[in-house]
Amino acid sequence: MTDVLDPPAPSFAPARINRRLPAHPVVAIVGATGAVGVELIESLTSRDFPVAELRLLASARSAGTRLPFRGRDLVVRDLTEDSFAGVDVAFFSAGAAVSRRFAPIAVNAGAVVIDNSSAFRMVPEVPLIVPEVNAPAMVAHGGLIANPNCVAAILTVALAPLAQAARIRRLSVATYQAASGAGAAAMEELRQATGACLEGRSLPPRVLPHPCAFNIFSHNAAVDPETGYNGEEEKVIAETRRILGRPDLPVGITCIRVPVLRAHGMAVSVEFETALSVDEARRLIAAAPGLRLVDDRAANHFPMPVEASGQEEVLVGRLRQDLGDPSGRSLALFLVGDQLLKGAALNAVQIAEALLPR
Amino acid sequence: MTDVLDPPAPSFAPARINRRLPAHPVVAIVGATGAVGVELIESLTSRDFPVAELRLLASARSAGTRLPFRGRDLVVRDLTEDSFAGVDVAFFSAGAAVSRRFAPIAVNAGAVVIDNSSAFRMVPEVPLIVPEVNAPAMVAHGGLIANPNCVAAILTVALAPLAQAARIRRLSVATYQAASGAGAAAMEELRQATGACLEGRSLPPRVLPHPCAFNIFSHNAAVDPETGYNGEEEKVIAETRRILGRPDLPVGITCIRVPVLRAHGMAVSVEFETALSVDEARRLIAAAPGLRLVDDRAANHFPMPVEASGQEEVLVGRLRQDLGDPSGRSLALFLVGDQLLKGAALNAVQIAEALLPR
Repeated sequence: MTDVLDPPAPSFAPARINRRLPAHPVVAIVGATGAVGVELIESLTSRDFPVAELRLLASARSAGTRLPFRGRDLVVRDLTEDSFAGVDVAFFSAGAAVSRRFAPIAVNAGAVVIDNSSAFRMVPEVPLIVPEVNAPAMVAHGGLIANPNCVAAILTVALAPLAQAARIRRLSVATYQAASGAGAAAMEELRQATGACLEGRSLPPRVLPHPCAFNIFSHNAAVDPETGYNGEEEKVIAETRRILGRPDLPVGITCIRVPVLRAHGMAVSVEFETALSVDEARRLIAAAPGLRLVDDRAANHFPMPVEASGQEEVLVGRLRQDLGDPSGRSLALFLVGDQLLKGAALNAVQIAEALLPR
Repeated sequence: MTDVLDPPAPSFAPARINRRLPAHPVVAIVGATGAVGVELIESLTSRDFPVAELRLLASARSAGTRLPFRGRDLVVRDLTEDSFAGVDVAFFSAGAAVSRRFAPIAVNAGAVVIDNSSAFRMVPEVPLIVPEVNAPAMVAHGGLIANPNCVAAILTVALAPLAQAARIRRLSVATYQAASGAGAAAMEELRQATGACLEGRSLPPRVLPHPCAFNIFSHNAAVDPETGYNGEEEKVIAETRRILGRPDLPVGITCIRVPVLRAHGMAVSVEFETALSVDEARRLIAAAPGLRLVDDRAANHFPMPVEASGQEEVLVGRLRQDLGDPSGRSLALFLVGDQLLKGAALNAVQIAEALLPR
């Protein structure tokens, strides 16, 4: 996710706002052929979303591609200013530039836009939503709802039940991020570069900035020359604060890419204002929506990408006192969530579900 | 490294102690065919250690193997109680059980033992040494010197120059650990399992407890059922405190295996008693022995396993304020060191070098 962070003001004035969706909405997907686009189609199917009609949209380069949906092959069409007539909800997943240009057009045409890019995430009037965490914030949306950065979504859904039980004082995160966050081409680069490496050859990196085979590297987003934080880290800090409703929460984070295909891991330390016991935290995680407790100390079985990939739930485990905090008010945990599902497509579809008639 | 942590008392009474080595020592390597053993031979060569004679020792299973050293093939011999006659310095790297049994025999035979296992690391009378950090602590050794856990060695050599400039108050670490830490067989398992995965097959894990191809998992050392910390984390905490001479230092750590062959990464947050600026930290790292500053924000070039593998220096970068600490007294950094070199063989040879006549 290498979008520009600066939040532009929304440059549209919706003629009419449909705050809720009809029972059987017409759905559009912008960026249908990308890694997230394909998972959006999958999630609409797996969650039995009541699609009246599905329009797949992409750049001219991908137009004409056929993608399966409910037993039929749908043709991907070229994205134009006329693409949104009659559309009730449009999922955007084609980067910030496309969202900046076409999201206002879609909203003005009467669609609710659920935007997976970073274009509008920090615009105060645009709700930034993880349904399990802050669904009420989308009630007064103005036609546009932002879907968070993948790390922020996976992190906040895991922290929410703990934050409700004890106020968080500060947060420290180290990520283990999959190639999927850089798109389908990065996933293919990881496969090909690894295969070449095993044969003693070396493929020069193309999509990713550094060799990915059997290697890890600091996240590819540009680094702020003054602060030393990269764009991914800046997004996670800003969005985590916004989703948790804690605009001043101190968040330290290091984002690292690892040779994993599609699930992000995070080692997290949370300092609370008042102590929260490990047992209580475990009970809260086990009871929370969207989470699965995977915390078997005897079997050394904790969250792993191979078990989180393709799963809707975020896996949470290794719950224990953080021994780096002598006050005893900090917990450590490790979590893994599918970057393409809870980190992107699933969360977007969950936002749309919350707008369906009850 | 799945050795038992409990430190047994040393069960030997050396007849005579050679606190320093002769100018041209007779050298033995116990565990010569293992991943670290092979690197010990390499390091003796690359550092031009003045070896008078090299004896390669291993279990009966590996005896008879031939390994090259300075243009000759040396035959690996069966380790017995008689193996150490005439040996001046013996490097042990065959696990804690072998060290417990044979290290006292070697010391009683007159050798200085440099032990890479965890058997004696927490015995107060046995110095635990990273030469750049605490070389003076080995002056009064009793024939036995312990080589630290790989994470502890790589971490403390990077922290030492900072700790000298400002007292550390607390420490938080998330590791990205290579397969080599679990031995040569784990490295081969990573290669084979990844190749199989790329062909759509799945190899059941044998050496490692979980699938390693395109996957990460919590370190394979057994987990304390009470605290939730695994044996690797317990070692790093205890040894880091001991090497830095800070027996009560609060250390929080999460140890994770990643699909990398032989270099360990660490995301580290250090809170100091008094603020240390990023510029000053960068200057200290750049000037410190055993470290290389890799911290190019404009080029997004930071420490990576592909660049640390085979290197003696630990690569340190991503130096910045830790935004998770509002007091401004914390720094964040990311470092990568070769697990088989600074994390094992190189550090052991450096200890031996410090015992040569000046």
